[in-house]
Amino acid sequence: MSLVSVGTVAFDTIETPFGKAEMVVGGAATYISLAASYFTKEQGIVSVVGDDFPAEELAYMKKRGINLDGLEIKEGEKSFFWAGKYHDNMNSRDTLVTDLNVLADFKPKVPMHLRNAKFLMLGNLTPEIQLKVIKQMKKRPKLIAMDTMNFWMDVAMKALKRTIKQVDILMINDEEARQLSGEYSLVKAAKAIHKMGPKFLVIKKGEHGALLFASNKMFYAPALPLAEVFDPTGAGDTFAGGFMGYIAKTGSTSFENMKRAVIYGSTMASFCVEEFSIGRLKTLKASEISRRVKQFDKLVAFNI
Amino acid sequence: MSLVSVGTVAFDTIETPFGKAEMVVGGAATYISLAASYFTKEQGIVSVVGDDFPAEELAYMKKRGINLDGLEIKEGEKSFFWAGKYHDNMNSRDTLVTDLNVLADFKPKVPMHLRNAKFLMLGNLTPEIQLKVIKQMKKRPKLIAMDTMNFWMDVAMKALKRTIKQVDILMINDEEARQLSGEYSLVKAAKAIHKMGPKFLVIKKGEHGALLFASNKMFYAPALPLAEVFDPTGAGDTFAGGFMGYIAKTGSTSFENMKRAVIYGSTMASFCVEEFSIGRLKTLKASEISRRVKQFDKLVAFNI
Repeated sequence: MSLVSVGTVAFDTIETPFGKAEMVVGGAATYISLAASYFTKEQGIVSVVGDDFPAEELAYMKKRGINLDGLEIKEGEKSFFWAGKYHDNMNSRDTLVTDLNVLADFKPKVPMHLRNAKFLMLGNLTPEIQLKVIKQMKKRPKLIAMDTMNFWMDVAMKALKRTIKQVDILMINDEEARQLSGEYSLVKAAKAIHKMGPKFLVIKKGEHGALLFASNKMFYAPALPLAEVFDPTGAGDTFAGGFMGYIAKTGSTSFENMKRAVIYGSTMASFCVEEFSIGRLKTLKASEISRRVKQFDKLVAFNI
Repeated sequence: MSLVSVGTVAFDTIETPFGKAEMVVGGAATYISLAASYFTKEQGIVSVVGDDFPAEELAYMKKRGINLDGLEIKEGEKSFFWAGKYHDNMNSRDTLVTDLNVLADFKPKVPMHLRNAKFLMLGNLTPEIQLKVIKQMKKRPKLIAMDTMNFWMDVAMKALKRTIKQVDILMINDEEARQLSGEYSLVKAAKAIHKMGPKFLVIKKGEHGALLFASNKMFYAPALPLAEVFDPTGAGDTFAGGFMGYIAKTGSTSFENMKRAVIYGSTMASFCVEEFSIGRLKTLKASEISRRVKQFDKLVAFNI
């Protein structure tokens, strides 16, 4: 197996200035694996749902080559549910409901045949669960990437730092990088975070693009300016899925290849926001991806 | 004459988390012309100061090849004064004092030998003054660029739109672009602003870089992530000066050349913020500029 991802598979109710979508499919592992499925057919997820999760959605994921042996279905229980409302500018949102449901006592079990995966993506979850997944791997993956959020910095910084120490790339947004490091300058934040363990850091800045830091290198990929941002939910996870899918496909963890992975991740995220839920990730064609990657290339190209 | 710029030459008192600078040299035309002086010696400014403005500062500007025939010195009056305090994140600031002084009844007079300049930069001032300067030009410059601010959108939108209609490039920040167009998406904002007259639009996004829009083209130059931002005052004007200086030096207004001008503008702005006032613009060497332009090139380069 090339890529294993852990994260939620869930329901979302989302309100944006453009409309409302009730009880639609969401969850970090859903977005990550669907985005990665455009690059690799050698992937599996580790997650948990209740028996309310639609069988046809799981069948669709399988059809896209996603191994679901690590997805536990708990009879008589409900899937994780999140409801949020975006403000007019789409850059901030309020969480209205968080029902942990099956997530409350989630004990991740990585199936034996996934434990030698080359690449591991830890979607946002409690740092303890993320660490458990790392420990279950038979041999250390070539690259471990990790997402997290400010909530864990507020309530579980110690456990969070323990997990961060074990990973190769941390993928967080600019606010989170500032909170985690205590530094406002992202250059200084990157230096501080390298010291915590990760050799690489991706700072996601939404409509302002993404930064990739290695100890002595830096890459800045702007986001494609879009006429319409319909629903930002899942954009960060879709970025991570595109990034790790591209790494899994190519096998290289050189800085040059990671730069390409950032571009593919940004490309996938730019599609994600065009429709509610995973809608756009279901209709996407390979030709659309390569066309948009060329747009990225054109967007930043200059000759001095 | 190649480039004429109109704008304030003034005093600032600035407080940042790093310190305080009292009654230091500032003003849009000061930053614009000093930045442009690294690219062209064929430039002049149109402005006004009181007799309190230090003769040695004017002598320094002259030494850098800036023609001051259009700078009126009003005996017995005081120069324009602005005081501001930056918040901890350096992305926002409060204006503490605005003393118009000589600016209150400023009537710009473009000297005869500057009236056939090829390039005109209108720094932020009342839209009426900006329009007067355009009208004084003997023949229509090849390129007219204009800066403005949200204040004029609040109190003089009609006059502002009259001036905007006459210019080729509008250079404003993202908030201003949104307010002027009524569109949140910058792609839509650009479309709306093109309809107001300007064929080109530069949207300055501070630490997130700058966007250049033509009717059917787009270019995104990220800002160089910096370890230290000491004082952001004048960064936008320095960007404009670097941009127009480069255009004046090269003479071309093709989209390809404007992209390079954005990179040179961003480069100059990245130096500006390293010290209070015009400090860094006084010590800068040509070799430092070309080294940093290469850093920009490296920052965004990728091969798909």
